[in-house]
Amino acid sequence: MARDKGQRRPKAETPKGFRDYFGAEVSERKAMLDAIAAVYHRYGFDPLETSAVETVEALGKFLPDVDRPNEGVFAWQEDDADWLALRYDLTAPLARVAAQYRNDLPTPYRRYAMGPVWRNEKPGPGRFRQFYQCDADTVGSGSVAADAEICAMLADALEEVGIPRGDYVVRVNNRKVLNGVMEVAGVLDPADPSKFEHERGIVMRAIDKIDRLGEAGVRALIGKGRMDESGDYTDGAGLSDAQADVVLGFMSARRDTGAETVARLRELAGGSVIGTEGVDELEQIAELLAAQGYGPDRIVIDPSVVRGLGYYTGPVFEAELTFEILDEKGRPRQFGSVAGGGRYDDLVKRFTGQSVPATGVSIGVDRLLAALHAKGRMQADTRGPVVVTVMDRDRMAEYQAMATELRQAGIRAEVYLGNPKNFGNQLKYADKRNSPAAVIQGGDEAAKGVVQIKDLILGAKIAAEASHEEWKSQPAQTEVPREDLVAEVRRILGSV
Amino acid sequence: MARDKGQRRPKAETPKGFRDYFGAEVSERKAMLDAIAAVYHRYGFDPLETSAVETVEALGKFLPDVDRPNEGVFAWQEDDADWLALRYDLTAPLARVAAQYRNDLPTPYRRYAMGPVWRNEKPGPGRFRQFYQCDADTVGSGSVAADAEICAMLADALEEVGIPRGDYVVRVNNRKVLNGVMEVAGVLDPADPSKFEHERGIVMRAIDKIDRLGEAGVRALIGKGRMDESGDYTDGAGLSDAQADVVLGFMSARRDTGAETVARLRELAGGSVIGTEGVDELEQIAELLAAQGYGPDRIVIDPSVVRGLGYYTGPVFEAELTFEILDEKGRPRQFGSVAGGGRYDDLVKRFTGQSVPATGVSIGVDRLLAALHAKGRMQADTRGPVVVTVMDRDRMAEYQAMATELRQAGIRAEVYLGNPKNFGNQLKYADKRNSPAAVIQGGDEAAKGVVQIKDLILGAKIAAEASHEEWKSQPAQTEVPREDLVAEVRRILGSV
Repeated sequence: MARDKGQRRPKAETPKGFRDYFGAEVSERKAMLDAIAAVYHRYGFDPLETSAVETVEALGKFLPDVDRPNEGVFAWQEDDADWLALRYDLTAPLARVAAQYRNDLPTPYRRYAMGPVWRNEKPGPGRFRQFYQCDADTVGSGSVAADAEICAMLADALEEVGIPRGDYVVRVNNRKVLNGVMEVAGVLDPADPSKFEHERGIVMRAIDKIDRLGEAGVRALIGKGRMDESGDYTDGAGLSDAQADVVLGFMSARRDTGAETVARLRELAGGSVIGTEGVDELEQIAELLAAQGYGPDRIVIDPSVVRGLGYYTGPVFEAELTFEILDEKGRPRQFGSVAGGGRYDDLVKRFTGQSVPATGVSIGVDRLLAALHAKGRMQADTRGPVVVTVMDRDRMAEYQAMATELRQAGIRAEVYLGNPKNFGNQLKYADKRNSPAAVIQGGDEAAKGVVQIKDLILGAKIAAEASHEEWKSQPAQTEVPREDLVAEVRRILGSV
Repeated sequence: MARDKGQRRPKAETPKGFRDYFGAEVSERKAMLDAIAAVYHRYGFDPLETSAVETVEALGKFLPDVDRPNEGVFAWQEDDADWLALRYDLTAPLARVAAQYRNDLPTPYRRYAMGPVWRNEKPGPGRFRQFYQCDADTVGSGSVAADAEICAMLADALEEVGIPRGDYVVRVNNRKVLNGVMEVAGVLDPADPSKFEHERGIVMRAIDKIDRLGEAGVRALIGKGRMDESGDYTDGAGLSDAQADVVLGFMSARRDTGAETVARLRELAGGSVIGTEGVDELEQIAELLAAQGYGPDRIVIDPSVVRGLGYYTGPVFEAELTFEILDEKGRPRQFGSVAGGGRYDDLVKRFTGQSVPATGVSIGVDRLLAALHAKGRMQADTRGPVVVTVMDRDRMAEYQAMATELRQAGIRAEVYLGNPKNFGNQLKYADKRNSPAAVIQGGDEAAKGVVQIKDLILGAKIAAEASHEEWKSQPAQTEVPREDLVAEVRRILGSV
């Protein structure tokens, strides 16, 4: 225990905004991702693992500041002057791969990817600078069957990880329908798409805030303007009441069945070519899904899905968990969105100049894990090992042999390898490891050819609930012949 | 297909020294790591996943150049002047974790970690700047039982991934025995460990080169010096013949049984306190392993294991595959080492000032994968999906329903989502996907209520081997009633 003198010691700290994952945290996430990967695999998607590092040039998005092109990403300059960066999502590397290997990959290319991404942002509570993403995309198919497939696969994935049917819904909308509505409302001119851009921006942001502002607030914002509680005034988009009616009609166009919703959308956007195209696509998606047995109990057409609409070019989808959880203040609220995606073009165009249609979905790994925790649906076995205690250091070989026997029977087991002097410490260790049982053999037991087995699960229960009499009778500890070790541990684990 | 004009397009390239992993490459590595993790888990080891990013201060090793402290690592400076870096191995983060959470972690702390690490080195053929490591370590136990356990676990892990007993051997040595031999040879003074450091360096390097130099070369190098073929002269360590005999005796001390080897080492190093301690430890390890049934067919005491001895402080081990493969020039050679490890102190001391004993092993993920490939022992299923072809775009929903049925039966399946016009392209696609079967239903088949199923595995075989007559009879294509789709595909997959 000698201490270095004079020298400053490095701090043992995770960098700010990063964290470590221990034991169950790792295995629970892994079990969930494995279950999702199995579904993706069944749908014909192939895994792709790109490296964490990309050239800043290939990542693209972050180049405005030439002097230090790492806004939002972790980037550094190579000796030969190239800038490298950690990927900030899994889509940018897919774009690079789709361009780089375009002559070798199958078309369409269905791929899934799971892994950490990095964001150089101010860390906050629950917001980390490294986190997992889990994506599936189909590159090179313009067919809405590809979009329908992604929606069905998303529903399957949610059920596979343990979200029962009825506890989630995949909501589908189409960016083209919104464009059609904009056209009909007179704020999009197909002949000059850049016209009314400012107005459309206001409308989009207003739509996105309907939960908070309510219909009246949205109407004000897309009309003359709106004064908020603090007295701040926001300029409106200047739409007339008739125009606003079209936009608000779109927001509330959802009906009981997909067919009725589609019919209502056709009324609203039918006056527009692009709008009609979008409604047709929604109708096809609904038909394709119905033919595969995915009814409105799992996947619904819902015009109120607007999140990220700006980024997408066609169908968009979002998976929402419909059960309630308690928020920080103990109030029940809907769990909300755990996955989202849609169709996007120009994935590969940056690199090759050729448009390649693509559609995909990204599951929010941490949110879905939180949901599974909230529902008690974790699939990973987080039980600790059976601990073989050390009563007599000279018989370490025999203790190791016991652990080996247990392992060969498929039971997780280990010998206590700390200082065995204090037996209490060994039991405390077993407790900390969440061990289901401890095996004990002192000299007396060895001479008699027996072992003591302590049922730590029952023991904890008794300690919490039992009377003094019950406790004294030690029902949680049994003595069995040495050769019955495995059988008795199996009995305790309930795995006979 | 419009092309941007004037604007320079980014290059679609993996950064130099990095690579992408596709399909089977990902699933094969995953299957191997999963199998290893299952063994580690059974031994009571818990997963730990630290972030890819550490402070340069915590990584430690790379601080000599204060101006740009990233020799060998990828590092960058944060806005607030902290330097961050990508981890270069999994041991440095373990050291940081063991120090940071020392009051919360169980003692001993058994952990395993698997994941990519990054090295800022000149890339070369087969040498990448991101690669996987797979480590297991026990922190906080000074007992040789911990070392023995690592050796047994390593043997189990190799068998679990598909290296049969007899095709590998775990070789165990002890740094202390070498120190004892140095003492007996007169090049280590326990009272002044810094004395003869130069000579010991030469001896260590010479020992490490015995495969290349042979006994005579080593004798020259640890004696008067050695002239190599190019005429270059290397100064020797200046050992006398008697001293050299001791060192060379150590190198060749391996006997038929562990007990005999231990006895021989006791003769060689028995004159030294530290040497005797090392021999005692080897003896205990051999006894512990024998009691658990790990005999010399799996784990041997072998004094010729020297790789990395300098870094370790006690027992060291190395797993070697004993079968031969053909090298680049077609010559048979031993496959060689796939894992190594040992006991090392001062893991946590940098941070806390307190010594913490630790022992661990690292499996060379890429080498072990290469070995499994060489032996045809890959466990991952790399077969492509069944492809439902599209003969009639209007019946897409029915094709999707077929794929859904297959998936619900646990069969990997997808609908062709490219342009269906050219049917030949659909079969080429199925071929590229390594599909076992293609499902075909045109209008005629639909009217008759049947589907055609093409056995692509048999088809490829026939194309390669069959006569024209056999080929014409199309035994690889069968027509079955629509309701027998799943059963027939099952039959083809051989999974009935």
